Amino acid sequence: MTKPVRIGIIGLGTVGSGVVRLLVESADHIQRHAGCPIVVAKAVVKDVAKVRSVSVPIDTLSSDIRNISGDPTISVAVLLVGGLEPARSMMVELLQNGKDVVTANKALLAEHGPELFALARTQGRSIAFEAAVAGGIPIVAAISECLAANRIESIRGILNGTSNFILTRMEEDGSSYADALKLAQSKGFAEADPSMDVDGTDATQKLAILSHLAFGVWVPWAEIPRMGIDGLDVDLLHYAGELGYRIRLVAVASRGSAGLTMRVAPALVKIGTPLAETRGAYNAVSIVGDAVGRMFFHGLGAGQMPTASAVVADIIDTVVGRAAITFRTTGVLCDPDANADRIQNMDAHQRHFLRIRASDRPGVLAKITGILGDFRISIASMIQHDAIEQGASIAPDAGVPLVIMTHACSSSDVAKAIEAIDGSDVVRGRSVCLSVLDERAE
Amino acid sequence: MTKPVRIGIIGLGTVGSGVVRLLVESADHIQRHAGCPIVVAKAVVKDVAKVRSVSVPIDTLSSDIRNISGDPTISVAVLLVGGLEPARSMMVELLQNGKDVVTANKALLAEHGPELFALARTQGRSIAFEAAVAGGIPIVAAISECLAANRIESIRGILNGTSNFILTRMEEDGSSYADALKLAQSKGFAEADPSMDVDGTDATQKLAILSHLAFGVWVPWAEIPRMGIDGLDVDLLHYAGELGYRIRLVAVASRGSAGLTMRVAPALVKIGTPLAETRGAYNAVSIVGDAVGRMFFHGLGAGQMPTASAVVADIIDTVVGRAAITFRTTGVLCDPDANADRIQNMDAHQRHFLRIRASDRPGVLAKITGILGDFRISIASMIQHDAIEQGASIAPDAGVPLVIMTHACSSSDVAKAIEAIDGSDVVRGRSVCLSVLDERAE
Repeated sequence: MTKPVRIGIIGLGTVGSGVVRLLVESADHIQRHAGCPIVVAKAVVKDVAKVRSVSVPIDTLSSDIRNISGDPTISVAVLLVGGLEPARSMMVELLQNGKDVVTANKALLAEHGPELFALARTQGRSIAFEAAVAGGIPIVAAISECLAANRIESIRGILNGTSNFILTRMEEDGSSYADALKLAQSKGFAEADPSMDVDGTDATQKLAILSHLAFGVWVPWAEIPRMGIDGLDVDLLHYAGELGYRIRLVAVASRGSAGLTMRVAPALVKIGTPLAETRGAYNAVSIVGDAVGRMFFHGLGAGQMPTASAVVADIIDTVVGRAAITFRTTGVLCDPDANADRIQNMDAHQRHFLRIRASDRPGVLAKITGILGDFRISIASMIQHDAIEQGASIAPDAGVPLVIMTHACSSSDVAKAIEAIDGSDVVRGRSVCLSVLDERAE
Repeated sequence: MTKPVRIGIIGLGTVGSGVVRLLVESADHIQRHAGCPIVVAKAVVKDVAKVRSVSVPIDTLSSDIRNISGDPTISVAVLLVGGLEPARSMMVELLQNGKDVVTANKALLAEHGPELFALARTQGRSIAFEAAVAGGIPIVAAISECLAANRIESIRGILNGTSNFILTRMEEDGSSYADALKLAQSKGFAEADPSMDVDGTDATQKLAILSHLAFGVWVPWAEIPRMGIDGLDVDLLHYAGELGYRIRLVAVASRGSAGLTMRVAPALVKIGTPLAETRGAYNAVSIVGDAVGRMFFHGLGAGQMPTASAVVADIIDTVVGRAAITFRTTGVLCDPDANADRIQNMDAHQRHFLRIRASDRPGVLAKITGILGDFRISIASMIQHDAIEQGASIAPDAGVPLVIMTHACSSSDVAKAIEAIDGSDVVRGRSVCLSVLDERAE
């Protein structure tokens, strides 16, 4: 029998336990793909005494990373610790000690990707990170290997399962944002502190990583315009539905003549299109390549076993040597000019969905539509329901919701118009403005 | 500059020309992924004198495969000749002369896969064939690399773009089968002789290849139950639509306790589900893995540049050495027991869609429903339109179309019932029976 490959795992939380389970339960099958058995020789955890759902021999457990980094019989380290520190120091320690690393930590790569990739390169090691973006969907492999012959033109994705779960529950059950969030937490789709998910940070970090691979451009994630779902309410989803749309937290990166445009924000997507039909904790990615055209991927973007599936695929890739080749040859990850191309906040020409809380008195509609007209914004459709019939969901001082779908127009004109409207005396509270994705481009 | 890798291309038809174009036009980009330039050193064609849309230096062209197989400076051969012979002999010649081969020829692999894979293995060479199935969709890489940690439970796919284009035109334009086929031919989506596409052969060959990768079971494609779209008429699509379904040519392989079930046939898929929303020349594949859950891929399944995209990705994989590793470690391709597991024609328990051409006289409906009842088949819904209003589309001797959607029932019971009905005196012509895919499983 071929000699087993010994690996070390750092972190036995949800994903780590799933990885161990998969390596044990599907050992025969995995051996067929890896060409040799893969065994977990060492595991490093914060608290060795903690009772775990997965059984790991007690003598393999320790709380010191050096038990893995210093073990010459271990060639592959699987870093499944979240957050920036101590994850970053651990990865540096592992690479400096000649380990190939597999990780699912997207925050770490989005924050410190270039320096970690450079260190791995210097050390002649690889970092594999399929599980860091879109869980079980093999989007990293798709972009860096399968679509290698293409110039990528655009990426559109639903990259945060928590947000999508919440939006789907609000849309299908009419739940409030708070109730849908609570349900997501009780089902394990959202953490106790969900802020990184619902404020768009998580999706933005994933978009930064995918764009690095697809466009060879490193954009610090914090520079990418970002809006989460935490400011949405169920009425907005309801109005979008009346107009034939759903609201999704969409991450977009597209290359135009003026540069790269990137954005994460809730947007309207036409019912029946792939992104609109992505429900619950699913993720979806739509990529356009110049040769292949539009490619669409859909699958579970999070959760124990889908993420473990991606981690174990990366372990196999590393063991057989594919990861080393990909990491070495994928020039985009180590191009010193990768951040030469600057991000452009291009003025998008598209339809916009507006909700304005108008005062309920004569002349208000004329004033609002007048302002829109001043900024060359023409109205495609409008909804104003009878305020009295709206019932309890509208507080008496919240104004009358006026919902407008514009024809395609400049997003900067819309922003200026909204500023003028919100600064006038005809509205109560701030307006909401969401962009509408062009369905032909989906 | 890194030394260029010299490759040979056999066949400069649609796909071959696309490959040359992509290698030239995206040379910089491809070099970033391959780590070196890739140049077409030799091309072998049937007719050297033929005028081509792609410019290849005349001194690289010949009609003799030995100009590639015998050239020690060429390491990778791209075989883009269709059909079985001379493609098979060419592949043998190339492998025997130590070339790694990239091909898009699914018929060749479906017919001679095991012997060619074994030869490549003996010679220490690789065969890469991403482009053989579903064009630009990276489904071969997904199954053999990205989902390597999973036991695949099922595959469902729309694998023939020609059939899907024809069905979509019939459905959306109300075209007859013959007119939709003519349109497909005029747009280049169907060949002059479309029989391999419309009779299901092409999809069946692709299913055999995917199943080999996914289940490690080699099933000769001709043993897979198969029905094409060539027996369908626009009325069937219309009735399916009335019931909330579309008809798609679906290839299914699923592993159950009793073995592997495989089938290619037109089936009803609920409107709104991913397969139903796959239109035109697009392909789609839905895979269920035990760890990753359901994964869905959608993209252009044929056409010059999508196929060239997959071929060039395989060329890059071969040049950098990934293809060699994948071919060597993917045990399923060289397992002598791969065909030990026998295909089972399992009796599926599902809904069925029946169209019976009933005689237009009293008592007929009672007799038909009586026969269905005898076979324990219960009716979920039924359509019978007024024969006179049907107008010209129904020939006077064709009977009155009676359309029945059954509740879930045994497919062998349905087959027996249809045999009894068609053998009785109450029908004119043969009935059509299509299965209805379970939407929860999509």
